[in-house]
Amino acid sequence: MKKLIDRPESLLEDSLRGFALAHRDLVALNDHPHFLRRKVAGHTGKVAVISGGGSGHEPLHSGFVGLGMLDAACPGQIFTSPTPDQMVAAADAVESGGGVLFVVKNYAGDIMNFEMASEMLDCPFATVVVDDDVALPANHSTGRRGVAGTTIVEKIIGAAAEEGADLAACKALGDRVVQATASMGVALTSCTVPALGRPMFALADNEMEVGVGIHGEAGRERRALGTASEIVALLAEAIHHELQPAAGQTALLHVNGLGATPLLELYLVYEQACRYWTGRGVTVVRSLVGNYTTSLDMAGCSITLTMLDDELLRLWDAPVHTASLRWGC
Amino acid sequence: MKKLIDRPESLLEDSLRGFALAHRDLVALNDHPHFLRRKVAGHTGKVAVISGGGSGHEPLHSGFVGLGMLDAACPGQIFTSPTPDQMVAAADAVESGGGVLFVVKNYAGDIMNFEMASEMLDCPFATVVVDDDVALPANHSTGRRGVAGTTIVEKIIGAAAEEGADLAACKALGDRVVQATASMGVALTSCTVPALGRPMFALADNEMEVGVGIHGEAGRERRALGTASEIVALLAEAIHHELQPAAGQTALLHVNGLGATPLLELYLVYEQACRYWTGRGVTVVRSLVGNYTTSLDMAGCSITLTMLDDELLRLWDAPVHTASLRWGC
Repeated sequence: MKKLIDRPESLLEDSLRGFALAHRDLVALNDHPHFLRRKVAGHTGKVAVISGGGSGHEPLHSGFVGLGMLDAACPGQIFTSPTPDQMVAAADAVESGGGVLFVVKNYAGDIMNFEMASEMLDCPFATVVVDDDVALPANHSTGRRGVAGTTIVEKIIGAAAEEGADLAACKALGDRVVQATASMGVALTSCTVPALGRPMFALADNEMEVGVGIHGEAGRERRALGTASEIVALLAEAIHHELQPAAGQTALLHVNGLGATPLLELYLVYEQACRYWTGRGVTVVRSLVGNYTTSLDMAGCSITLTMLDDELLRLWDAPVHTASLRWGC
Repeated sequence: MKKLIDRPESLLEDSLRGFALAHRDLVALNDHPHFLRRKVAGHTGKVAVISGGGSGHEPLHSGFVGLGMLDAACPGQIFTSPTPDQMVAAADAVESGGGVLFVVKNYAGDIMNFEMASEMLDCPFATVVVDDDVALPANHSTGRRGVAGTTIVEKIIGAAAEEGADLAACKALGDRVVQATASMGVALTSCTVPALGRPMFALADNEMEVGVGIHGEAGRERRALGTASEIVALLAEAIHHELQPAAGQTALLHVNGLGATPLLELYLVYEQACRYWTGRGVTVVRSLVGNYTTSLDMAGCSITLTMLDDELLRLWDAPVHTASLRWGC
């Protein structure tokens, strides 16, 4: 295992300290229990938008704490849900009268722990569950997984909360973005969790995992390594089939790197995906290309499409100032 | 070789088209010869800041084209210098009466080609050569290599040019930033150039390359894989020895990922490097952590320190709006 670490046990804490230090203008780290909160508070009565999940997907969620996005993020151990005490402490720290909106990726551990935290809150709350991964069928026993669409959901809810939308409106908006969003990914390599010390799964030199989850979960099928064109067609078709956009609709196209894939390749994928939808009458009006929801050092990417209307477009464009997304402010 | 590509020969062009499409609000791509230029022009008479180099280091330089940074970037083939016709065409397109400042990383091919381009210009020009890599001795036959400090140089010169500094001032400023900047990197793995199809060099599972160049060039020494603490000490000591900062001085600390190293690890490295200099009386007042000068899919990182004064700090903080760096605008 080749990693820039001292000990697997201290990686998360060492890294969080570095993150909080590098971005001390934006975020503050609470030590026990761990959470990151934005330093410049929102207006009194603002809905507190809180997310979290296993670490190893950075910049998700820590890199999205700040003006116009998250009020706090709760980092779990690598690929492990954070615990309810983190979420409750984060909520206590940032709630200012508008209630708490939890944004939770659909994994059993996250769902359970955020639910336990909700029961311990003494303020109004709501939860938006992100389940944008169309690799699994909609009726899968534990539902679909939350993957790179989470960034879009957090950006749009965060903008609405910053503008003064109330808890019910933020919750309804979040559910609407989730409905309008579909993603699918492909892994060219596995990833190595430091505490495990070896690749999470084996993938031969001539194989790829289509529909992979962001923790290396098996997807739709393992098949022979394809060209970018073949891969984009597989991912885009699954997404298109799910969203069934009508000609003339507008969309945001997000090509997300899983960690070890160079930008050169991600922009190539973007160009092909953009062409796929343009050819079907969809107008790609906004784009996000880069490593946003990663799986440690996995090579591969995911494609996410969010169908936009005027309100979602306006909220996507609204000012944001976080470590990893910033514009217009 | 596992890459999201169709054919190695078309990767660069396919990727540039995707980049220009994703960032069509910011940049325009010229096809023959290839260069990227900012879409919103600077003021008339502004010094045109132009950089370029081999591709495979993205976001450097394409991701830095825009307000407050580069007016144009000339991408060569992967790890190969761009050609003089690209630079001349870029200069013709963006020069507006203030002359051209080339920012060139110190590699024989780049130096030669930018020099040939300079001779073909019919406007005033100057060149800032970036040679921040302290892995090689200062008296090395071809000089020191230009690595991740390039981002800092381009940001600060770009801000000055945007403010109206003239060609001589931009050139002097760039030289001053280069003088104040030192970098060193470490590779944990090699990288794979698509046209080659295999790792550029071999590195055993228990080895690392200390002082590696951004094309996989050998550095100071190959040694047994160390902990992050050991690695940070090696890199920071070489940088500290070069810059010899006095206690009380302020600095910008840039931890750069080489492509395949997760942000978790980069922030851990940042924390340790920050502690190294803080312990020596240097105040780290600005930070940049992430993948900015990459080597395709290489695992590893580099550390860059730039000693700041009030002017450099102000220019670093000045508005910038590019694909990969944006703030304050």
